[in-house]
Amino acid sequence: MNNFVSMKTIKANEIIKLLEQTDAFANGQSFDLSSRKKRFIANLFYEPSTRTKMSFEVAEKKLGLEVLDFHAERSSVLKGESVYDTAKTFASIGAEALVIRHPINNQVQQLAEALDLPVINAGDGAGEHPTQSLLDLYTMYQEFGAIKGLNVLIVGDILHSRVARSNAYALKALGANVYLAAKPEWKDQSLDFPYVDLDQAIEQCDVVMLLRIQLERHQQSKDIKASAYLTQYGLTVKREQRMKKEAIIMHPAPINRGVEIDDKLVECQRSRIFKQMENGVYARMAVIHQLLNKGESRHGNDYQTMFAYAH
Amino acid sequence: MNNFVSMKTIKANEIIKLLEQTDAFANGQSFDLSSRKKRFIANLFYEPSTRTKMSFEVAEKKLGLEVLDFHAERSSVLKGESVYDTAKTFASIGAEALVIRHPINNQVQQLAEALDLPVINAGDGAGEHPTQSLLDLYTMYQEFGAIKGLNVLIVGDILHSRVARSNAYALKALGANVYLAAKPEWKDQSLDFPYVDLDQAIEQCDVVMLLRIQLERHQQSKDIKASAYLTQYGLTVKREQRMKKEAIIMHPAPINRGVEIDDKLVECQRSRIFKQMENGVYARMAVIHQLLNKGESRHGNDYQTMFAYAH
Amino acid sequence: MNNFVSMKTIKANEIIKLLEQTDAFANGQSFDLSSRKKRFIANLFYEPSTRTKMSFEVAEKKLGLEVLDFHAERSSVLKGESVYDTAKTFASIGAEALVIRHPINNQVQQLAEALDLPVINAGDGAGEHPTQSLLDLYTMYQEFGAIKGLNVLIVGDILHSRVARSNAYALKALGANVYLAAKPEWKDQSLDFPYVDLDQAIEQCDVVMLLRIQLERHQQSKDIKASAYLTQYGLTVKREQRMKKEAIIMHPAPINRGVEIDDKLVECQRSRIFKQMENGVYARMAVIHQLLNKGESRHGNDYQTMFAYAH
Repeated sequence: MNNFVSMKTIKANEIIKLLEQTDAFANGQSFDLSSRKKRFIANLFYEPSTRTKMSFEVAEKKLGLEVLDFHAERSSVLKGESVYDTAKTFASIGAEALVIRHPINNQVQQLAEALDLPVINAGDGAGEHPTQSLLDLYTMYQEFGAIKGLNVLIVGDILHSRVARSNAYALKALGANVYLAAKPEWKDQSLDFPYVDLDQAIEQCDVVMLLRIQLERHQQSKDIKASAYLTQYGLTVKREQRMKKEAIIMHPAPINRGVEIDDKLVECQRSRIFKQMENGVYARMAVIHQLLNKGESRHGNDYQTMFAYAH
Repeated sequence: MNNFVSMKTIKANEIIKLLEQTDAFANGQSFDLSSRKKRFIANLFYEPSTRTKMSFEVAEKKLGLEVLDFHAERSSVLKGESVYDTAKTFASIGAEALVIRHPINNQVQQLAEALDLPVINAGDGAGEHPTQSLLDLYTMYQEFGAIKGLNVLIVGDILHSRVARSNAYALKALGANVYLAAKPEWKDQSLDFPYVDLDQAIEQCDVVMLLRIQLERHQQSKDIKASAYLTQYGLTVKREQRMKKEAIIMHPAPINRGVEIDDKLVECQRSRIFKQMENGVYARMAVIHQLLNKGESRHGNDYQTMFAYAH
Repeated sequence: MNNFVSMKTIKANEIIKLLEQTDAFANGQSFDLSSRKKRFIANLFYEPSTRTKMSFEVAEKKLGLEVLDFHAERSSVLKGESVYDTAKTFASIGAEALVIRHPINNQVQQLAEALDLPVINAGDGAGEHPTQSLLDLYTMYQEFGAIKGLNVLIVGDILHSRVARSNAYALKALGANVYLAAKPEWKDQSLDFPYVDLDQAIEQCDVVMLLRIQLERHQQSKDIKASAYLTQYGLTVKREQRMKKEAIIMHPAPINRGVEIDDKLVECQRSRIFKQMENGVYARMAVIHQLLNKGESRHGNDYQTMFAYAH
């Protein structure tokens, strides 16, 4: 694995390897990539982010890396510099890997192909968000002990959701059954997964994964009435009560409370929303560790992987 | 002490304990909170800040903590995320304490009650600014060897000043006499301290604490003529000459030179303005140390507290 | 050397000393300025920057320093604080040196004179950019083994270029021959170096140093037609083919591809543009090391300087 940009092209056994390493970090394994000298990684975020950016930063620092934090809005981007030239700059001054979020689909993939250092996709437009997918997979594994055979229902603005896309590909690769629910205009017909009716599917699924309504990505947002959306397409308390006893609720956050999910459900017993965030750190550590730990293994402690994937 | 959000509710002996620890750090004590593993603290500033934010950062790094620096203006706040959800996010990804500045009074107090990790108030609207107060108290202690019995005159926009509020509470708790001087429309009648005439009081006080005119907080600011304000309500050279021989000048900064204080006085012999900034690092170290050092004491060096509070 | 603000006033032997230390760092020497306690340096950038700012940050972190990153746009600058007061603030909270970029000529020089801690000029208006010059000198030295006698042609907006100014002074001090080429309105007549015709000079020079057209600094920028400029004043493939066999292309970046240089030449064999960026880290390490390593030498490893300057 030289980059980590898409869940569509990655192989199932590579995902499993990453999940095993995620599990190791979640169970307290430590690892210092910079024990002998300072090593640098750069975070290039061309879109606002709290969770993903900070989660990467914690992961990077936990691995002993020095973090170069790029701020598009007060950088040479203002002087018209291209993403490629900026990326080359970070490579030139010593970054050994780049974490990139960009508003344009496939921009990160193209950069990964053009550059000769590892690139991690932190979300590209309505393309993919593979580290979010990895943490989601790990959260499901933690809950159910396996991914294979799970019924996962993804609900919301599928068309504009890179989270939906990455998860659909990865879940399929690991043998889960993926179902989608969306308003007609938010269906992505290029995705080869069945669309179902939320009210019919709610009782069958093990995981209800809600997507954030990305108000900043579609102009008709002003027309979306929060409460009307919740009643028709969101997770109301009524719908939640019809879920299977062991089923869980997931959401990549930030949450529009009262829009895609009832405010009361955000921290309810079934919700794994904040657990997902916690797991995000371990999943990102696993990806970075995989890309940067070339042969110079120096474990802070020994962790015997007990991960037995039911696959 | 589980949080540090207000000087109104804290007990005098808790303040003294913090002052003793401040003194230890000011005298070179070092302490590493992260000797065994990386530990994280997050700074959430919803208002502009240089001094307070950077002072916290230096304090945190001196204690060996990793700092998560949250930028409200390019974060999920843009996507409508609430302070509570952002705070929960930082807790989920590993922050062990939160330092929060927020434009709304009591917002930090409410968060502290809702969250189960330590919260430090770095200034909330026109509410409180307890770490500024702690560093001010320490600066006075350094100068006079005691707080009890000191005559402290706080001058300026009392109504909008969180610094005035926190200091008035804390100084009273430690036995100082607090006097206030303000334009009529800047008096806060809810504060139970006497208002005095600046020109009458100037000869009696040990400390003249000037407040910054917070131009950004009141609309009538455009009507404030700098030189007219200085002559009528500010610290002119004439007034400074009438101060007691040992009396000192304090100011939380940033300073409007030539408005609340004559430009010539900012770095004069009596001024402790930059000394206050230096002490701010030690005071914040003391607060963080108090909140995060639960039982695992690992002193970088031994410091025998010689602090004998005349109280 | 107490500050590093100008190439006009620095002595040749001081430049050489810095080049030798740059060479040591480029060859892998490590040095830890903070081995006994945390030491802080502050980066105060009042203008956008990627390369310079990040390059300083890598240099600082490689030397073991803790970096205080000042963001003018969400700081007390918004409350009207002067650069002097901000700089004094950073000194008060523990910064041992300041790296400053500022839009006004000579502002950094004035600060250096007013403050009693080392100040490094990271670019001041159309004044100077001495660390850029140092890295440029080192890149030429790396290539040719000497600076003396080199023919260096600087091309572009000389009048507004701090890079041109610092390089012209330093190259002259080290015995190189400096030639300038510019549109008539971009000539700086106060500089005592010959202006030449690009097409006549291109065959004689060892170094063609292109300057970025600083669109943000002159209003007539909207009138600049990219391709017309390239043909008339930029480095086209045709001109590049007429360069001496061993001659190199330099550019401080960010590059306007297709304006001052043909897109195809940016990463061509002769180009040292990304090498310059790499060397920037070592040059800045040398400057900081020179200013902050007062007597307490603690080498991470021993490096025998082999630098024999042909001067």
